[in-house]
Amino acid sequence: MTRVLYPGSFDPIHYGHLEIIVTSAQLFDEVVVAAMRNPQKGQGLFSLDEREQMIKECCADLPNVSVAMFSSLVVNLARDLEADFIVKGLRAVSDFESELQMAQMNQALAGVQTVFIPSASKRSFVASKLIREVVRFGGDVSSMVPEPVQKRLAERFEQQQ
Amino acid sequence: MTRVLYPGSFDPIHYGHLEIIVTSAQLFDEVVVAAMRNPQKGQGLFSLDEREQMIKECCADLPNVSVAMFSSLVVNLARDLEADFIVKGLRAVSDFESELQMAQMNQALAGVQTVFIPSASKRSFVASKLIREVVRFGGDVSSMVPEPVQKRLAERFEQQQ
Amino acid sequence: MTRVLYPGSFDPIHYGHLEIIVTSAQLFDEVVVAAMRNPQKGQGLFSLDEREQMIKECCADLPNVSVAMFSSLVVNLARDLEADFIVKGLRAVSDFESELQMAQMNQALAGVQTVFIPSASKRSFVASKLIREVVRFGGDVSSMVPEPVQKRLAERFEQQQ
Amino acid sequence: MTRVLYPGSFDPIHYGHLEIIVTSAQLFDEVVVAAMRNPQKGQGLFSLDEREQMIKECCADLPNVSVAMFSSLVVNLARDLEADFIVKGLRAVSDFESELQMAQMNQALAGVQTVFIPSASKRSFVASKLIREVVRFGGDVSSMVPEPVQKRLAERFEQQQ
Amino acid sequence: MTRVLYPGSFDPIHYGHLEIIVTSAQLFDEVVVAAMRNPQKGQGLFSLDEREQMIKECCADLPNVSVAMFSSLVVNLARDLEADFIVKGLRAVSDFESELQMAQMNQALAGVQTVFIPSASKRSFVASKLIREVVRFGGDVSSMVPEPVQKRLAERFEQQQ
Amino acid sequence: MTRVLYPGSFDPIHYGHLEIIVTSAQLFDEVVVAAMRNPQKGQGLFSLDEREQMIKECCADLPNVSVAMFSSLVVNLARDLEADFIVKGLRAVSDFESELQMAQMNQALAGVQTVFIPSASKRSFVASKLIREVVRFGGDVSSMVPEPVQKRLAERFEQQQ
Repeated sequence: MTRVLYPGSFDPIHYGHLEIIVTSAQLFDEVVVAAMRNPQKGQGLFSLDEREQMIKECCADLPNVSVAMFSSLVVNLARDLEADFIVKGLRAVSDFESELQMAQMNQALAGVQTVFIPSASKRSFVASKLIREVVRFGGDVSSMVPEPVQKRLAERFEQQQ
Repeated sequence: MTRVLYPGSFDPIHYGHLEIIVTSAQLFDEVVVAAMRNPQKGQGLFSLDEREQMIKECCADLPNVSVAMFSSLVVNLARDLEADFIVKGLRAVSDFESELQMAQMNQALAGVQTVFIPSASKRSFVASKLIREVVRFGGDVSSMVPEPVQKRLAERFEQQQ
Repeated sequence: MTRVLYPGSFDPIHYGHLEIIVTSAQLFDEVVVAAMRNPQKGQGLFSLDEREQMIKECCADLPNVSVAMFSSLVVNLARDLEADFIVKGLRAVSDFESELQMAQMNQALAGVQTVFIPSASKRSFVASKLIREVVRFGGDVSSMVPEPVQKRLAERFEQQQ
Repeated sequence: MTRVLYPGSFDPIHYGHLEIIVTSAQLFDEVVVAAMRNPQKGQGLFSLDEREQMIKECCADLPNVSVAMFSSLVVNLARDLEADFIVKGLRAVSDFESELQMAQMNQALAGVQTVFIPSASKRSFVASKLIREVVRFGGDVSSMVPEPVQKRLAERFEQQQ
Repeated sequence: MTRVLYPGSFDPIHYGHLEIIVTSAQLFDEVVVAAMRNPQKGQGLFSLDEREQMIKECCADLPNVSVAMFSSLVVNLARDLEADFIVKGLRAVSDFESELQMAQMNQALAGVQTVFIPSASKRSFVASKLIREVVRFGGDVSSMVPEPVQKRLAERFEQQQ
Repeated sequence: MTRVLYPGSFDPIHYGHLEIIVTSAQLFDEVVVAAMRNPQKGQGLFSLDEREQMIKECCADLPNVSVAMFSSLVVNLARDLEADFIVKGLRAVSDFESELQMAQMNQALAGVQTVFIPSASKRSFVASKLIREVVRFGGDVSSMVPEPVQKRLAERFEQQQ
């Protein structure tokens, strides 16, 4: 039985993330998707609770996927969950280098291995940061986020009007 | 008739930007240079009005170049202006990847195409961020910005003394 | 009137190339697609005549696209054709750096400008080199090359059996 | 039960490869290491048989690792072996981009997924190409290849004297 | 006599930095390590005084290494110290490009040359930013920072509990 | 006294190389420029003797620069010459990664350190490979190579007509 941990900010979850989750759920027995608070990125658009809720809604049809929140080191969570390894998506070269650095550090610090799953190229430009920016100006992101996320983004945007 | 949009922060405009504007004005019929407010980059050194003013002063001799300000999505501005495509400069690999991501998103979101113009290599290290830093410590940037910008930088710097 | 030159090996032309050609034909008045012999890449799979023929078949519906062959410097061809600038596609970071170097050299040597058109991300992995390799082993490339090219690849492959 | 395929040239196998094999053998149930003939890389230093033999000697203590040779497409081998996915090592940015392109192509062509395992940083400079070059000039590669490979390299080198 | 300047944030100094200092102290006659305040990076974890103190403790055994603080342009400090050139470490591609830009700017602005010393690969993932993050969550960084820094990190961390 | 080794193919030497040599001759006491035969790059345009001759002609005014040829490992030459370290130029990201790999290997194999000197950006596109290609088609390379190299390139080119 292989259990993997897929950590991220997920602010909000988008089709690029979902692609990695679906692939992981096909390749491995159990997938734990964990939304983390990244203090260096400030407040965020959604609360951790909202992010977890959206991930759950988007993964409702994937029986071997569960969702968690955490505000600790990824390697601590990996050990608490008895995960076999960490899964990360890779879209582009700029992702790669900081992810490789983090993976090597997690390996050296705690013996926790990371494996990378490449994004299908048609999703490679999708990023939460760009989605937040587009929505802020009233743009349409329906091709980039699932329906439950679209709904919440619209609500959040209306509140800010 | 080909009308192109050249968007950016231009805080402040420098010789690397001007090179792209001059090249665009040679290759295409009309060039709209648009200074935008980037909320993620904070306050900025100059106000949007000041940036627009400096661009106008630097482009006074280029009859087919006009200047605009905006605080919306680039693709919205491109459609409002009936621009044929967006023009961006490319200096280095690190520019390239985020610019490619943005270009692919603008194409997917709104069908707006981006074309890239490479910097001549002797300008490739010039960047507004470094200019602001050098000026903050009283360094000389006369080789990097046109005279109207030098003057404003000197005024701004004196105020902060 | 803007005339652009799109040079390449085109051994063979694929959907990634066609995307650049179609975009160029929309943005600019005239597009000349020029297949070149690259002596450093050895013999090639198809002769220059065959490559030219396939490009013509694939671009038959694009009235402002013409096709040429050349075995000289790209900048010489650009001047002979009175092209306003060179167009190149950009897929990935590894493309970018050698293309930037070439563009800067062509600018310094002969004053010929290059503009880059990014590939839509869903085509970013398509490359002639990979196509030749897949076909060599009998793989299916119908999602990557137009029908006239598929046909020729199949013929070439059968001859080699 | 998860069976993975680890393809490569392995000309010759070195500690960087072994690290990926050991990690894969810990993470997954079965690992098939497959040495392939790459016609584009010319003759190679060792024959496919010799490469296979060296891999076997180096993996003798890993019961869930088997060795194969192939001269076909990786995706065909993956299907013949009923492998769940392909495993590749990642050392550096320059690896990453061509590997990502290949992975996206294999996914698009044949629905075969690739996952990437990062090299521990202390091995990141080890590459078969550099090893062959060092040995050619009589240099010492004992820190980079296991004992059975050192022995064969020494033999090969003596023959060429 | 060759005197070199090694500038950085050093918040805090780690084994990756020390490796560059030790190598510089072997290659050159005098090394000045200068901790700078980077206003763009906010407050920092340690004060400039604390950083200087830790560097001194870590370099106590290196007689040709001295320590300085500064809050000016690096090129100004280089001239004040009559340094022959600036030394920077290079770990990875992402480092490289912004460092190259800075080096070219320092050369153009003030005629001050920079030379780069590559990190031994086994240290390439160590970065102050990651160390601060690991310590914030109570992780163990003893493999990444010398003993005097570990002690201060532990004190700082306890205060924040 | 600091003696450095600057190895390369120099087929032929160009202004980008000369810039590194001039900078090294300013920063260090003695510079040995060593032209090497790279068997992986085939025959080359010029013989090793011709390359050495051209380097000598171009460096005639630099009293602390000497020239050597070698067909061995760079680290062996560095030890034979009692060089303190190896100097390499860095133009671009694509240079950087293979050079870093080589530097880490030379450090691990033989304890020989490499330091990198960045190219001034206006030379960053100059490369021997592109020069050979331009000359092959009768292009003008006078902005890229010193006069003695121009003369030899012209002779070589005429012979091939």
